[in-house]
Amino acid sequence: MSKNTSAAFGVPQKIPFETPLPLENGQNLPRFDLMIETYGMLNAEKSNAVLICHALSGNHHVAGRYSAEDKYPGWWDSMVGPGKPIDTERFFVVGLNNLGGCHGSTGPLSQNPETGRDYGADFPLVTVKDWVKSQALLADYLGIRQWAAVVGGSLGGMQALQWTISYPERVRHALVIASAPKLSTQNIAFNDVARQAILTDPDFNEGHYARQGKTPTRGLRIARMMGHITYLAEDGLGKKFGRDLRSNGYQYGYDVEFEVESYLRYQGDKFAGQFDANTYLLMTKALDYFDPAADFGGNLTRALQDVQARFFVASFSSDWRFSPERSKELVKALIAAAKPVQYIEVKSFHGHDAFLMEDEAYIRAVRTYMNNVHQELQP
Amino acid sequence: MSKNTSAAFGVPQKIPFETPLPLENGQNLPRFDLMIETYGMLNAEKSNAVLICHALSGNHHVAGRYSAEDKYPGWWDSMVGPGKPIDTERFFVVGLNNLGGCHGSTGPLSQNPETGRDYGADFPLVTVKDWVKSQALLADYLGIRQWAAVVGGSLGGMQALQWTISYPERVRHALVIASAPKLSTQNIAFNDVARQAILTDPDFNEGHYARQGKTPTRGLRIARMMGHITYLAEDGLGKKFGRDLRSNGYQYGYDVEFEVESYLRYQGDKFAGQFDANTYLLMTKALDYFDPAADFGGNLTRALQDVQARFFVASFSSDWRFSPERSKELVKALIAAAKPVQYIEVKSFHGHDAFLMEDEAYIRAVRTYMNNVHQELQP
Repeated sequence: MSKNTSAAFGVPQKIPFETPLPLENGQNLPRFDLMIETYGMLNAEKSNAVLICHALSGNHHVAGRYSAEDKYPGWWDSMVGPGKPIDTERFFVVGLNNLGGCHGSTGPLSQNPETGRDYGADFPLVTVKDWVKSQALLADYLGIRQWAAVVGGSLGGMQALQWTISYPERVRHALVIASAPKLSTQNIAFNDVARQAILTDPDFNEGHYARQGKTPTRGLRIARMMGHITYLAEDGLGKKFGRDLRSNGYQYGYDVEFEVESYLRYQGDKFAGQFDANTYLLMTKALDYFDPAADFGGNLTRALQDVQARFFVASFSSDWRFSPERSKELVKALIAAAKPVQYIEVKSFHGHDAFLMEDEAYIRAVRTYMNNVHQELQP
Repeated sequence: MSKNTSAAFGVPQKIPFETPLPLENGQNLPRFDLMIETYGMLNAEKSNAVLICHALSGNHHVAGRYSAEDKYPGWWDSMVGPGKPIDTERFFVVGLNNLGGCHGSTGPLSQNPETGRDYGADFPLVTVKDWVKSQALLADYLGIRQWAAVVGGSLGGMQALQWTISYPERVRHALVIASAPKLSTQNIAFNDVARQAILTDPDFNEGHYARQGKTPTRGLRIARMMGHITYLAEDGLGKKFGRDLRSNGYQYGYDVEFEVESYLRYQGDKFAGQFDANTYLLMTKALDYFDPAADFGGNLTRALQDVQARFFVASFSSDWRFSPERSKELVKALIAAAKPVQYIEVKSFHGHDAFLMEDEAYIRAVRTYMNNVHQELQP
């Protein structure tokens, strides 16, 4: 396999799809673009392609920096790159922005060809199945018959899992990290509060805020602040901020006072300033709806019966949003369905966010697994 | 001891205090009222009085119904009443609405004697210490030198604990239930999101909404919905609602869809329609600030060194807002300070709300403890 050149690393491109896409909700999306970014070189056999599926706030920019001035690299730079666990010198890695996103793929901010105006609230509620279907069209476009691996954390892991069910013959390995085969009641409850914060923001304008030059920043900020707490572990938060105050003694007012307040408000402000509220809404709904066992009478083992992929499943001890128990549900169903699976529960105090962190045991486990995936490629 | 008559059960009354109250924040509250409700009869020795401290949304109406038409009894009717664990045929039980509340005691909706207008945002941020101080004045007014017991759950438990430190000789027993010696970072973080939801509601008007005939209902509703999730256990929520839908199949929209959404929105609406936002804000701040060890270099054992009360501490296995670990911090510090303490960890899937529920083991433990408290009263 040829060594990748720098030109092949992190080039974003927008791929147009002009055929209508039938969606799970019964609607057809007349046309759509997918914004993607690729890393490394596709080999001659087209057997070394790895798809990276993103979570709620991710996008196609998985690794690297566009320029030396870029403050942050892609969202999974710890995992993807030359010499990294998902090694772009070995694999052709594809990141994409999901349909309904706000980073270049067709979504609520895009023009609706049927009206000539932005979709806004009229953008259909796409599902994990819809995403995977659009990703399969992307694979066709790229000439990839079968992915060496489909990889994702959280909502991204749900897409990896759905891939193995929707297109069993097109996935050799699925890496499902910090994920769950469906949301818990508590997960759905938190998502609904987040949505209500956005939907009741007076600037939401029933989802058509953009065409009025407004954004429901207040609601999006509250949603993100709350979400952020659920991504972090109680322990991790305590270790990082404790009860530290920004100044000496209590102020007896409602300005920022504890360090953790400062941190959360900063995270909320940053996110609300750059993310689209309609995208946030539909992503949370895709999370709520995901339940591949539902088509099989609630039996996850039966849902997995035709799966051909081998699985790597990882969870994090302090993740209470998608706890290890939720990963084990998947592992148990895979075992019951006689499918090969490797499972690791990583000790971490980073909570759900741990899947984005550089924990040594975790990184090593993914590296080892991907080394084996690479070994299979050798003639 | 005479049997209480129905006339002595659940009579609300407003007690005026015309002497200025110096507060922890340096301000003086010129005067204040405390709304109280009492149950049972104070004995001749005035030794059988029990103070019930309320949590965030509670009030003076602890037990019973005012009339047969009342839909709900007082908030701790399972615990307080004739023949109940805190037996009003044996004890003279006092419930009160805390200072800063919105159920009759002086608070943000009351008239500020210095301006002739409602306090609104100008009502001072009272603390747990301030509450206990005002409760001590109430005890003086009622002629109670020493409480047989001070009892509370959650924020109410913090008041019971503070009583034993502020007035060691005035408390024989403290029952600290589903509480903590201070909030965790995560607790503070959730409180800040709740406050931000209220503070950024366009109808908040910097806290002076009432005089403009408005209420920040949206913010209060979001705060309560989020809070409510944290009061319930993941397991309990799952058992109660699962992923049940209100109609057949997904609706692909943002109207209420899952049963848990319906429940949460109902809880949020109900609360937002009847609770004062400024009270909510200051109660959460009182929670954040509570940290009796802080005056003793962070050493809780030293904070407890002069305590004379005996303790009953209870926690609930599925309470993740104030987990059993938090109760154990208090228990360990009491043991280190050589203070008598009984501790029970109750198995429950009701989360933090379990302290309001009729769990048999829990009810029996409180009953047994209070029986012993009553035994001590016998000559």
